[in-house]
Amino acid sequence: MTEIKFTYFDFKAVGEPIRLLMKYGGIDFVDNRIKYEDWPKIKSTMPYGQVPILEMDGKVVHQSTAIARYFAKRVKLVGDNVWEEMEIDAVVDTINDFRSKIQACFYEKDAAVKETRKVPLFQETIPFYIGKFEELAKNNNGHLAVGKLTWADFCFVGILDFLNKVTETNLIGGCPNLEKLVQNVTSIPTIKAWIDVRPKTDI
Amino acid sequence: MTEIKFTYFDFKAVGEPIRLLMKYGGIDFVDNRIKYEDWPKIKSTMPYGQVPILEMDGKVVHQSTAIARYFAKRVKLVGDNVWEEMEIDAVVDTINDFRSKIQACFYEKDAAVKETRKVPLFQETIPFYIGKFEELAKNNNGHLAVGKLTWADFCFVGILDFLNKVTETNLIGGCPNLEKLVQNVTSIPTIKAWIDVRPKTDI
Repeated sequence: MTEIKFTYFDFKAVGEPIRLLMKYGGIDFVDNRIKYEDWPKIKSTMPYGQVPILEMDGKVVHQSTAIARYFAKRVKLVGDNVWEEMEIDAVVDTINDFRSKIQACFYEKDAAVKETRKVPLFQETIPFYIGKFEELAKNNNGHLAVGKLTWADFCFVGILDFLNKVTETNLIGGCPNLEKLVQNVTSIPTIKAWIDVRPKTDI
Repeated sequence: MTEIKFTYFDFKAVGEPIRLLMKYGGIDFVDNRIKYEDWPKIKSTMPYGQVPILEMDGKVVHQSTAIARYFAKRVKLVGDNVWEEMEIDAVVDTINDFRSKIQACFYEKDAAVKETRKVPLFQETIPFYIGKFEELAKNNNGHLAVGKLTWADFCFVGILDFLNKVTETNLIGGCPNLEKLVQNVTSIPTIKAWIDVRPKTDI
């Protein structure tokens, strides 16, 4: 059988949706976790200076969303037609936009600039996006797209711990439909079993 | 026949890959162009405060890459299998990363910060990414992925005028394989015909 090697930091963050998809589908993989302190010496060995990467059959692919979509197709968590696939893709890209806006604030090195950016982030950006996601979860029966479990749900649930930790908030507090979404994903037996045994990390 | 309405600024930028894909496949669409000065009053009417959007059958979808991938499937410019689709997706996301890094510099409002950011952008980021794209184009016979024409080529060629104008450079100057890529796309009869008649815009 083809060995699948998945390399990322010892974080959940953008790697975890991919791990969840593989675990959901019973796909065996080598869960290769880089220590963050080793990154400076590893970075130059990565094809685009980035992780995660996926290694299979002597090939290497980067880009977390592309890798997640690949496994989503393999484990059949995609749409039933090209329109539905677009709707799911749009939600995934919106989750990525939301993450990027949070990172653009919290990764800012200038402390004064960071504080300035926090104001619109917490007053406008986060309520806007969380409101949109809550509305999607309400309209899609505890899922984010096309009224059923898809890889968009895994992208949201997989990244949520990271976003909560970075923002030091519970982003979905007071959002019953997003809480239902998290429950819908984390109660899947294969996912629950993974959460029980996976390395414990803050982000 | 279902009317397709595509709404974006009167720019090429991230809208043009989608227009190119529709033109390539002979898909009729309403090319609805917003004047940039009208954007403040239109923004709040957009589902996520963003363009482009696609309207079809009473539904509205945003996210440029999701829309482009949808039309790529319709006009058969995708991979032959899920692995190839991932390789193409990874290239598209890398083009988006490259654009984001350029925008993060040039959209900076603080003039001093912008000048500071230009140094690593021009000395490191642009040469790194253009070098990678040139290598891909060399290894894929004048295309960016899987050795044939795909929607990744349309994403690169569609955004290139915008990136050149913003950076005030010819990003692919001295890159014969990227020049071949541009030629491979712009010499397609349906694309050439569109370029001849499309509204002339700087970006």
